[in-house]
Amino acid sequence: MKRERNRKMIAVIHGPNLNLLGTREPAVYGTTTLREIDVAIVRLCTELGVAVTTEQHNGEGALIDAVQAAAARGAAIVINPGAYSHYSFALRDALSAAATPKVEAHLSNLHARDAFRKRSVVSAAVDGYVAGFGVQSYLLAVRAAVALLDRRKR
Amino acid sequence: MKRERNRKMIAVIHGPNLNLLGTREPAVYGTTTLREIDVAIVRLCTELGVAVTTEQHNGEGALIDAVQAAAARGAAIVINPGAYSHYSFALRDALSAAATPKVEAHLSNLHARDAFRKRSVVSAAVDGYVAGFGVQSYLLAVRAAVALLDRRKR
Amino acid sequence: MKRERNRKMIAVIHGPNLNLLGTREPAVYGTTTLREIDVAIVRLCTELGVAVTTEQHNGEGALIDAVQAAAARGAAIVINPGAYSHYSFALRDALSAAATPKVEAHLSNLHARDAFRKRSVVSAAVDGYVAGFGVQSYLLAVRAAVALLDRRKR
Amino acid sequence: MKRERNRKMIAVIHGPNLNLLGTREPAVYGTTTLREIDVAIVRLCTELGVAVTTEQHNGEGALIDAVQAAAARGAAIVINPGAYSHYSFALRDALSAAATPKVEAHLSNLHARDAFRKRSVVSAAVDGYVAGFGVQSYLLAVRAAVALLDRRKR
Amino acid sequence: MKRERNRKMIAVIHGPNLNLLGTREPAVYGTTTLREIDVAIVRLCTELGVAVTTEQHNGEGALIDAVQAAAARGAAIVINPGAYSHYSFALRDALSAAATPKVEAHLSNLHARDAFRKRSVVSAAVDGYVAGFGVQSYLLAVRAAVALLDRRKR
Amino acid sequence: MKRERNRKMIAVIHGPNLNLLGTREPAVYGTTTLREIDVAIVRLCTELGVAVTTEQHNGEGALIDAVQAAAARGAAIVINPGAYSHYSFALRDALSAAATPKVEAHLSNLHARDAFRKRSVVSAAVDGYVAGFGVQSYLLAVRAAVALLDRRKR
Amino acid sequence: MKRERNRKMIAVIHGPNLNLLGTREPAVYGTTTLREIDVAIVRLCTELGVAVTTEQHNGEGALIDAVQAAAARGAAIVINPGAYSHYSFALRDALSAAATPKVEAHLSNLHARDAFRKRSVVSAAVDGYVAGFGVQSYLLAVRAAVALLDRRKR
Amino acid sequence: MKRERNRKMIAVIHGPNLNLLGTREPAVYGTTTLREIDVAIVRLCTELGVAVTTEQHNGEGALIDAVQAAAARGAAIVINPGAYSHYSFALRDALSAAATPKVEAHLSNLHARDAFRKRSVVSAAVDGYVAGFGVQSYLLAVRAAVALLDRRKR
Amino acid sequence: MKRERNRKMIAVIHGPNLNLLGTREPAVYGTTTLREIDVAIVRLCTELGVAVTTEQHNGEGALIDAVQAAAARGAAIVINPGAYSHYSFALRDALSAAATPKVEAHLSNLHARDAFRKRSVVSAAVDGYVAGFGVQSYLLAVRAAVALLDRRKR
Amino acid sequence: MKRERNRKMIAVIHGPNLNLLGTREPAVYGTTTLREIDVAIVRLCTELGVAVTTEQHNGEGALIDAVQAAAARGAAIVINPGAYSHYSFALRDALSAAATPKVEAHLSNLHARDAFRKRSVVSAAVDGYVAGFGVQSYLLAVRAAVALLDRRKR
Amino acid sequence: MKRERNRKMIAVIHGPNLNLLGTREPAVYGTTTLREIDVAIVRLCTELGVAVTTEQHNGEGALIDAVQAAAARGAAIVINPGAYSHYSFALRDALSAAATPKVEAHLSNLHARDAFRKRSVVSAAVDGYVAGFGVQSYLLAVRAAVALLDRRKR
Amino acid sequence: MKRERNRKMIAVIHGPNLNLLGTREPAVYGTTTLREIDVAIVRLCTELGVAVTTEQHNGEGALIDAVQAAAARGAAIVINPGAYSHYSFALRDALSAAATPKVEAHLSNLHARDAFRKRSVVSAAVDGYVAGFGVQSYLLAVRAAVALLDRRKR
Repeated sequence: MKRERNRKMIAVIHGPNLNLLGTREPAVYGTTTLREIDVAIVRLCTELGVAVTTEQHNGEGALIDAVQAAAARGAAIVINPGAYSHYSFALRDALSAAATPKVEAHLSNLHARDAFRKRSVVSAAVDGYVAGFGVQSYLLAVRAAVALLDRRKR
Repeated sequence: MKRERNRKMIAVIHGPNLNLLGTREPAVYGTTTLREIDVAIVRLCTELGVAVTTEQHNGEGALIDAVQAAAARGAAIVINPGAYSHYSFALRDALSAAATPKVEAHLSNLHARDAFRKRSVVSAAVDGYVAGFGVQSYLLAVRAAVALLDRRKR
Repeated sequence: MKRERNRKMIAVIHGPNLNLLGTREPAVYGTTTLREIDVAIVRLCTELGVAVTTEQHNGEGALIDAVQAAAARGAAIVINPGAYSHYSFALRDALSAAATPKVEAHLSNLHARDAFRKRSVVSAAVDGYVAGFGVQSYLLAVRAAVALLDRRKR
Repeated sequence: MKRERNRKMIAVIHGPNLNLLGTREPAVYGTTTLREIDVAIVRLCTELGVAVTTEQHNGEGALIDAVQAAAARGAAIVINPGAYSHYSFALRDALSAAATPKVEAHLSNLHARDAFRKRSVVSAAVDGYVAGFGVQSYLLAVRAAVALLDRRKR
Repeated sequence: MKRERNRKMIAVIHGPNLNLLGTREPAVYGTTTLREIDVAIVRLCTELGVAVTTEQHNGEGALIDAVQAAAARGAAIVINPGAYSHYSFALRDALSAAATPKVEAHLSNLHARDAFRKRSVVSAAVDGYVAGFGVQSYLLAVRAAVALLDRRKR
Repeated sequence: MKRERNRKMIAVIHGPNLNLLGTREPAVYGTTTLREIDVAIVRLCTELGVAVTTEQHNGEGALIDAVQAAAARGAAIVINPGAYSHYSFALRDALSAAATPKVEAHLSNLHARDAFRKRSVVSAAVDGYVAGFGVQSYLLAVRAAVALLDRRKR
Repeated sequence: MKRERNRKMIAVIHGPNLNLLGTREPAVYGTTTLREIDVAIVRLCTELGVAVTTEQHNGEGALIDAVQAAAARGAAIVINPGAYSHYSFALRDALSAAATPKVEAHLSNLHARDAFRKRSVVSAAVDGYVAGFGVQSYLLAVRAAVALLDRRKR
Repeated sequence: MKRERNRKMIAVIHGPNLNLLGTREPAVYGTTTLREIDVAIVRLCTELGVAVTTEQHNGEGALIDAVQAAAARGAAIVINPGAYSHYSFALRDALSAAATPKVEAHLSNLHARDAFRKRSVVSAAVDGYVAGFGVQSYLLAVRAAVALLDRRKR
Repeated sequence: MKRERNRKMIAVIHGPNLNLLGTREPAVYGTTTLREIDVAIVRLCTELGVAVTTEQHNGEGALIDAVQAAAARGAAIVINPGAYSHYSFALRDALSAAATPKVEAHLSNLHARDAFRKRSVVSAAVDGYVAGFGVQSYLLAVRAAVALLDRRKR
Repeated sequence: MKRERNRKMIAVIHGPNLNLLGTREPAVYGTTTLREIDVAIVRLCTELGVAVTTEQHNGEGALIDAVQAAAARGAAIVINPGAYSHYSFALRDALSAAATPKVEAHLSNLHARDAFRKRSVVSAAVDGYVAGFGVQSYLLAVRAAVALLDRRKR
Repeated sequence: MKRERNRKMIAVIHGPNLNLLGTREPAVYGTTTLREIDVAIVRLCTELGVAVTTEQHNGEGALIDAVQAAAARGAAIVINPGAYSHYSFALRDALSAAATPKVEAHLSNLHARDAFRKRSVVSAAVDGYVAGFGVQSYLLAVRAAVALLDRRKR
Repeated sequence: MKRERNRKMIAVIHGPNLNLLGTREPAVYGTTTLREIDVAIVRLCTELGVAVTTEQHNGEGALIDAVQAAAARGAAIVINPGAYSHYSFALRDALSAAATPKVEAHLSNLHARDAFRKRSVVSAAVDGYVAGFGVQSYLLAVRAAVALLDRRKR
């Protein structure tokens, strides 16, 4: 555990319905599955020398739990809040309370879809965000998180 | 299981606080209990020759799980999202992702109550909706779901 | 006439442009004509043992007249107000004044179309509504109206 | 009738209160009467070799009837919906359903008057619109309709 | 006719659903019928020495026709636009175009009812308005119209 | 005092800036002074056999005091709240608390002026209102108040 | 005076129309009079060993004066701003300027009444607020004020 | 259990992220932990002779379950809904359905923070609320709940 | 008095809470007291050869009285309406009615503070305004008023 | 130059991105290039006997310069402000200041596209507008401009 | 250049369409030309012993360049952003970045004109503003800028 | 040139005020200068084997020119539109018209700053966006652009 502490850690947290990736509305979200995304994330993290965990939850409470747990163990957070982005002030509060780096990632460009997806209530609580690049959104978000961790470690 | 596949299936999903039916604000929701409604639904389904399951959840995540599960097993969905109708974009996404017929049902006429109940964020993701007829709303919704299943089977 | 009084009656009132059904934007409204819908309605009513009349009007005043007349002769009302749903407070008042059962029916799912179609100013004045099931919307609405008549007769 | 079919036809439909032209608020609408406008329109149509009819209605239903009738006989529609422009979704639906060319014309510049006149609910259902040039608005609208007919005939 | 011209005239125009007075929602509108109101109006006009006509229409077009006709014969207008008050810009234009005195009357206090009844789009086009006094609203409106006629005659 | 109790009483309360009448923006408010209006009111009240008091205040607190005092002595209230109409919820509460008849009067037609004058926060707390007829607004309001008193006395 | 300084002081300030308590809309505000509330407040303050003054004003200026005076003499403020809560930015500024503890109290639950009562422009300028418990709201507010005074004294 | 019934019970329910108290944004929420707050609550309840339970949940469904359970066993509810206050209509419905006393408590003054925290969708469903006093908010809320229980017991 | 008439006069009117200047939120309003500001104003006026009076009121009614009095004696008005700027339509009406030059002055830059301070309902009724320069705002406003007086005198 | 003055002149000004015509989103804007449009415009002007200049600018400042220059030399303006239509108040002011005839032209029907394109801030500053007819929009706008010039010349 | 540094400098920057002053809508902006205004400004600056430059630009980019250049050379900025006031966030950012004193000036009273002119997006980025006094607005703004420079120099 | 075509190219376009980086509000934007950012971008591009150009413009027209030019030469676009993000529909149209990959980059987290920065009118026209990571935002945006180019090349 102690060693873990010294090592850079990233917690990737996938929000609601992302378990359906690859099958759900492929025109919007592509045919890559969540498992394939996780594999790509792990590969990049190995490359960058950071430990990584990935998890997916449909429930708002479970996502809050995950954010709290990640922050508690000192991990940087890469989160795709899915539709909770647009109304979950509770998730926002959980992110505000986390003292570790926090990056929001979205597969699709939220501004090029339904009007309601333009409103974000959680973005103000993260360090930054990446959207619109499919799997790349996650990989860029991981890079961003690592850069933020580096900055703090120094 | 295979036989199930060949048979028409309906998943009735009750949202938050519907477990209180019959005791909660009877002036608005009547004195019929959720159990009695389920009995009426099962009776109609038996009559129409469709398999049916019913479940109730207070949590948004649990409802999303239920919608995903129903869609995964090919069941048409009859859902009363309760108050989640007015803000759960996550539930909407779950319904959008479901490829089976989807019908929204409400016991009361949402337009004749509080102003906030006029706004629905999930209705755009279902095939159609029925509201205002008490237990009948469910029974009509089941009929609608069966008609939609029939149309697709052909 | 006296016999009529003792019998359950339903007045189906079609709003503006519904006379064009089958030719108007078939992608949205299907290829069934209004005449075919009326035939289906009459068939169901015969089956359910209720008398039925159907009429269509493009004018707001004519629709108000029709609602007033139906209510005056004790008929339950099944109305598709078409686009008047979104702004006709006068039609709403006519429906509010009608003491017989009132059901609103729409062929398409109003929430899955133009933004302005999400707003209804007449729904608060009916008992309930059904939308999104094409011809079935009318048939379910008729069933709902019959159920409401039954409840009152008792 | 067959000959008519082969000939280009335009239906000019004047909306509410336009029968008062020349007497109503001349500071805004000028002193030309509706009759004089119709004469000018007929003269231009004769010049352009198209058949033309003109009519005026104060009622929303009557205007919908007129639009339906014009579309049914294959005539291009030049319509000044008057104040109905700002709220008549029923008229909009009638225009959407018409497959012939549709041009909206207004005597005055709606943006230079009352705030409510800036909102149009029917413009999205026509091919294009002309406003602000008095009688010329109609004449330009007729030219536009003829151009649209020409494009389709080819 | 000429004599008529020299005499003060008032046209009382009742809007949609007012023909139901006495039966429609008596808690809001009282039990007096429209006929009884007209009798009271005629009695007052006789007393005040003015000629009066009364009419009722459910249709927007018919009301516009009535306003135009009254203005054309030089009659002051007392109008209860009913629910059209809240959206009929076409009726507003008809009233704006009328050069005779114009008074709006409402039986009930619109501000003490549904939120949508607080918005008036026609009031800006009349000289003044009276609301909330039941039958008295009409009688006061008639007095106001007579006062306006007197002022102009001078 | 006891005799007063048995007699019908009206309290006319003028709001802010009405003391300037006759000099302030005569194009909008005319050249009649507040004194002249009070004289006309007293004359009509004498004619109708009711006692009347008139007062004018610029302060919101003073107007609330006046409303409370009038209600306490059983007088019907005729109030022109002036600009307080548009935002004084405190005055509204004072009027709501008054159990005597309450009539709101305005010299000008508020809907034909600045946009902010269309909003009234006090009208919901009175029985009815009259606006747009200059001095006549007050005289009609007095008549309305007397009619309301008569109805209650019975 | 010096002794006063050393003693904890509370100024209870009642806003507009609260002098009517017990008689005004008892369904909403109960039958307890303001005098009875003041007696209960004094009794609690005696028990808690704090000096207390109570006053009531209908005018916005008088309430601002009272807030300034209380702050100037070092008293904690317990204020029920009544309807001024919803729009008096001037009162808000007076409270912001006061350096002593400030507690807002309301007899009724503002969120369960008219929509306009949900907006507060003064709450941001107090330390905290209590609402919905009738007389208890004041007593709890006094306790809160005492706790705040204690915290500062230390 | 029967004895419990006769005794006054309070259920204190803490919403999302409150488990982080003392560590999360201490500038806003102070350094007191949730455990310390619970100790203070229990101490006060012992003093007041009421039974008390405390629980904390991040999930909306879990909070609804908790509210339903508390109401079912007859306990008064003291709830800090945290960020759910601003959008959880489902929690509001759960509270509306609870027939026992209900008090909302917030540590901080919601009006002095982010704009979105000014909107409450649950407050209309409780008896009253207390906010802005830190731990004292809970203690005052408990007192309020006890007072409400007393009133009902009588 | 007659001599006064011939001399240019300025009435400086300070609104609510300005009596606290120097003590209230010095970070926003500085440490200069109102008395010191008045001294600076008088000094400048002496220099410019104009008579000046200064007064401060917390009440809306008192401010309206002051504006009316200043206008009545022919004085140009320099007013800092404080928070009334944002909602006092009554004060706006008083200023509209004043025929003398009118200048609005604010110590701070209203656009760089709370959102609600960006809205002004009185500015439309003055000739011009100056804000953001502390004491200088008043001095510049006085210069503007003198320039306006000069322009009129000519 | 002098001759030019006596001759009717038109300045056609194309706004941002119109240089891309024919290549940019041909589904919306067609395949005609700006050069081809200019050729058609010149041909029509020659036919109508008016001098014409055409220019295109991406910058707001450059467009304002062009409008000022055209107005300065007495040319009627035909302008397609492109996306500046929706927010350029500076361009609106430039057009307001131009005393020559001004016509706005758009290739596409702005009401049938993105919601933001329904708002125009410049239309109030032109005489009239034409939209939705592709190249014809320009040709009709030129005709309108010529008609306006003719009217003024007389 | 060095001497310049030690001397107080003011950069007066005129926004779009101000070059038209004297000819553009003289009813609103007067007949004074921009050249005359610049002469008056230079005269005052000479009197006050400050160096001054004046420039006018129609383009947003050019105005940003001018603001950056002025700030870079240490000059206080007096800017009339014209219509850019209402939407140019880019200009606002340029002003925010400038560390020298910044004063906004407008010839007319923006609150007494079109509704859109009430919104300012740049005022929050300046120290203060002056509006409504014609040429005097500039002269007062210059005085304000000098006072701000003096305060900083000390 | 031909060789260039075969090589992957990126055009980095910096919007208004970014030339001030390092000096402007370092608390928000850091102390890195634009030159240093460009150096870092060039270094990364060299590493990734793509050609890159960088440019900065304050003017909207110049930015549109730059976008058109980049698209014309087949370069992927990385753009930081600065404040134009919030209102430049013209820039949005330029980006929509560009057929090459388009990535939006912002140094700061727009959601954690002024409210107006939450609205983006250009994001819908790019493929994706990155914000909040300072210089890293640009580097990640470059990586995203390269990935998009790779996807298309294949």
